Amino acid sequence: MDVDRSALQTGTQVRQVCRSGEFTGQTSGLALGFAQANLVILRKQDAVDFREFCERNPKPCPLLEVTEAGDPCPHKLAESSDLRTDLPRYRVWKHGELVEEPTEISHHWQEDLVSFLIGCSFTFESALVKAGLPVRHLDLGVNVPMYRTSINCESAGMFSGPLVVSMRPFKPADAIRAVQITSRFPAVHGAPIHLGFPEQIGILNLNQPDFGDSIPVESDELPLFWACGVTPQAVLMQAKREFAITHSPGCMFVSDVKEATLAVS
Amino acid sequence: MDVDRSALQTGTQVRQVCRSGEFTGQTSGLALGFAQANLVILRKQDAVDFREFCERNPKPCPLLEVTEAGDPCPHKLAESSDLRTDLPRYRVWKHGELVEEPTEISHHWQEDLVSFLIGCSFTFESALVKAGLPVRHLDLGVNVPMYRTSINCESAGMFSGPLVVSMRPFKPADAIRAVQITSRFPAVHGAPIHLGFPEQIGILNLNQPDFGDSIPVESDELPLFWACGVTPQAVLMQAKREFAITHSPGCMFVSDVKEATLAVS
Repeated sequence: MDVDRSALQTGTQVRQVCRSGEFTGQTSGLALGFAQANLVILRKQDAVDFREFCERNPKPCPLLEVTEAGDPCPHKLAESSDLRTDLPRYRVWKHGELVEEPTEISHHWQEDLVSFLIGCSFTFESALVKAGLPVRHLDLGVNVPMYRTSINCESAGMFSGPLVVSMRPFKPADAIRAVQITSRFPAVHGAPIHLGFPEQIGILNLNQPDFGDSIPVESDELPLFWACGVTPQAVLMQAKREFAITHSPGCMFVSDVKEATLAVS
Repeated sequence: MDVDRSALQTGTQVRQVCRSGEFTGQTSGLALGFAQANLVILRKQDAVDFREFCERNPKPCPLLEVTEAGDPCPHKLAESSDLRTDLPRYRVWKHGELVEEPTEISHHWQEDLVSFLIGCSFTFESALVKAGLPVRHLDLGVNVPMYRTSINCESAGMFSGPLVVSMRPFKPADAIRAVQITSRFPAVHGAPIHLGFPEQIGILNLNQPDFGDSIPVESDELPLFWACGVTPQAVLMQAKREFAITHSPGCMFVSDVKEATLAVS
């Protein structure tokens, strides 16, 4: 398990050490420049509604790729990949309950499973950092704070629930730059959905996130709120489907696609 | 003087009634879709530093075109135009004092005069309105509020002074859209330079603008601040050059260039 993280510089390299079982940790900071993705795997009968849910809510659920039933490879994101073995760690859910957290899922694979690869905010955070903007939770080495909002997603079949957002504070001029930069990445949540007045979206206490860690917001800063990839997971758990597999938090699928290619201009 | 404003639908039409002396009013709302421009005319000896000032401060002073000395036609903006006659009204300045407000300036023309055409916020306001955003001062039928800030422009030769900004309030989601939309128009002041905390840029009372009219900002709105075309005029007055001509406030040069072509993507 003593893989040298600094040696994992491409998607292929990360997936290889996952596949061999040598690496089972979080993927944040690995293979810089390569897009990472959230994973949701469902039975075909549930996949139709879940896809519709994602299409109706593109800001929290930006679909990077959907596989054909039974095919464990997302061909556009990484031709040589195998979703059954190439993530560090998975979560297996039955009727909305977490039943197993394995490092590979070959023993669960079935011909009717459809895999959803959903854009991840690591990509736009890396664009913010490259632009010289200070990203508070990265500087503090903690998880981004996330909140359930009073905004409901558009539902589809059995999938419904509140929009979950992540929060990053910026000084005003940096807030404007952050809007500009993340607007270029609609495939990874895009522009913020709100800034300035948390109570307007049902967030009553910034210091009490529903997920992740609390971080300070200074008096000369504005809180900016982005639609968050935790939304589809929360919605999925709430729908209590008979069978589902997701990545384990922070243990993402690392693709061969360069983050820069996800920018619209 | 009873020109039917609704008949003035192109830059050519507006310039023609200015040239014939039939129209001497404000150009706001005329020839919708065609870019309008601020005008500054200086002697060649002053033009070098003024051009450098504009280049160093592109947000308040976005140069659309600079003519060659003695040439009264900005060929890129309007091939058939004549800056001596084609604006509704001008202001003539000597040593920083307003000495005349004529409707044409042929009698002042000299072979060493250089004309600066500077982008105007009418263009981005029209983009905001087209996107369905409510622009408060337009809805109220008043002038946009403008403020001197504590931010100094980068000086060039004798030209220096504070950045002047215009203010438009928006609800948070509209504020994000407004940043996105105006970012596409760097030739007409571009993205806001600030939002949220007026005191951080030296504005102590939003209700007391230095120019234009006061407008209400509701408690669920954020004030957004854009670099303003009044900046170069204030800087010019302060420099007290021996001779200068500008447009009269609101009486802009109307070009043949479509506003949409000023967008970067």
